[in-house]
Amino acid sequence: MGGFAVILASRSPQRRAILEQLGIPFEVVVSAHDEGVLAGDPVATVEQNALGKAREVLARVALEPGELVLGVDTVVVVDGRTLGKAAGEEEARASLRLLAGRRHEVFSGLALCDGRREAVGHAGTGVRFRPLDEVAVARYVAAGEWRERAGAYAIQGVGSALVESVEGDYFNVVGLPVALLVETLAAFGVAPFSWAPPTP
Amino acid sequence: MGGFAVILASRSPQRRAILEQLGIPFEVVVSAHDEGVLAGDPVATVEQNALGKAREVLARVALEPGELVLGVDTVVVVDGRTLGKAAGEEEARASLRLLAGRRHEVFSGLALCDGRREAVGHAGTGVRFRPLDEVAVARYVAAGEWRERAGAYAIQGVGSALVESVEGDYFNVVGLPVALLVETLAAFGVAPFSWAPPTP
Repeated sequence: MGGFAVILASRSPQRRAILEQLGIPFEVVVSAHDEGVLAGDPVATVEQNALGKAREVLARVALEPGELVLGVDTVVVVDGRTLGKAAGEEEARASLRLLAGRRHEVFSGLALCDGRREAVGHAGTGVRFRPLDEVAVARYVAAGEWRERAGAYAIQGVGSALVESVEGDYFNVVGLPVALLVETLAAFGVAPFSWAPPTP
Repeated sequence: MGGFAVILASRSPQRRAILEQLGIPFEVVVSAHDEGVLAGDPVATVEQNALGKAREVLARVALEPGELVLGVDTVVVVDGRTLGKAAGEEEARASLRLLAGRRHEVFSGLALCDGRREAVGHAGTGVRFRPLDEVAVARYVAAGEWRERAGAYAIQGVGSALVESVEGDYFNVVGLPVALLVETLAAFGVAPFSWAPPTP
């Protein structure tokens, strides 16, 4: 390719959508890295998973100058417990009952590598849910959006109606901490909006 | 039409996108109401403008049972000053310089009317910008997104890279306070997710 571009080591459509929204040029190379969970340590978990994803792609892709591999991992934490993706509707309802009417934390790890250097960091965002009765929980789960989502909800979808407020980087909850990405890109010499073409 | 639907008294594509994301059925009837500004009182300003927009549409549309008119108005406030839409690139750059590296508030008023009752309320969200140098300001403005946006930025666009964190309802900053909408709909008897069809 040549020139600045991000190689996104993730299949997440939400992460693709955020890079598109930013106007950052990117390609997707899905990582084969197996996500691990370090019990009781969500920050170490997401940082190691982000780095593992980025390194796995870096090891098998020939980067052009200006290309950077981006690895991201996101988890939902409540009561010190890390919630993963629900295995079925019953588990999705249980996850939503646990989150209803209170605050939980979303952590993402973010890693960037260019073959010579790597950087890794994390972002945490608080999310407060509205109180939910059983009818609301049942209806939200029936709408099907819980699938493939940590914590069984999508803040950028119908699930926005579950949420009362956020504290921190909203895009971290969607799946890609934008402020951390912008800072980390700057550390690699990619200045904010240098990727955004002027309108004619 | 018959059945639940919202009549959105706004031409804003961002507000339409949020109703679509929620799965709420809606039609657009752009209000002819002139937005006013009450000096020094952003909450009264956005509530009166929201109500004025909704009432103006209500007065000339024949509502079917289950239909509700929705009026919304959003402003950006910094140092007690209400920022409107910038008139040109110079004003857009000045607005971004004012917001850089600090927190401002976004207020939206939201009004719902069904012809028998009306309800009005507001939501406030804090937004903290990253520090911005002159090059970043110039590049963001050159990308053209400042147009038609209070405060000269779009948090749901390339402008997400301007923002460090939010505190409150993120969607309020986009232009429609979702948590307040869900609560106000419930007060009109429309329960959360009653509009979301189950996936087959």
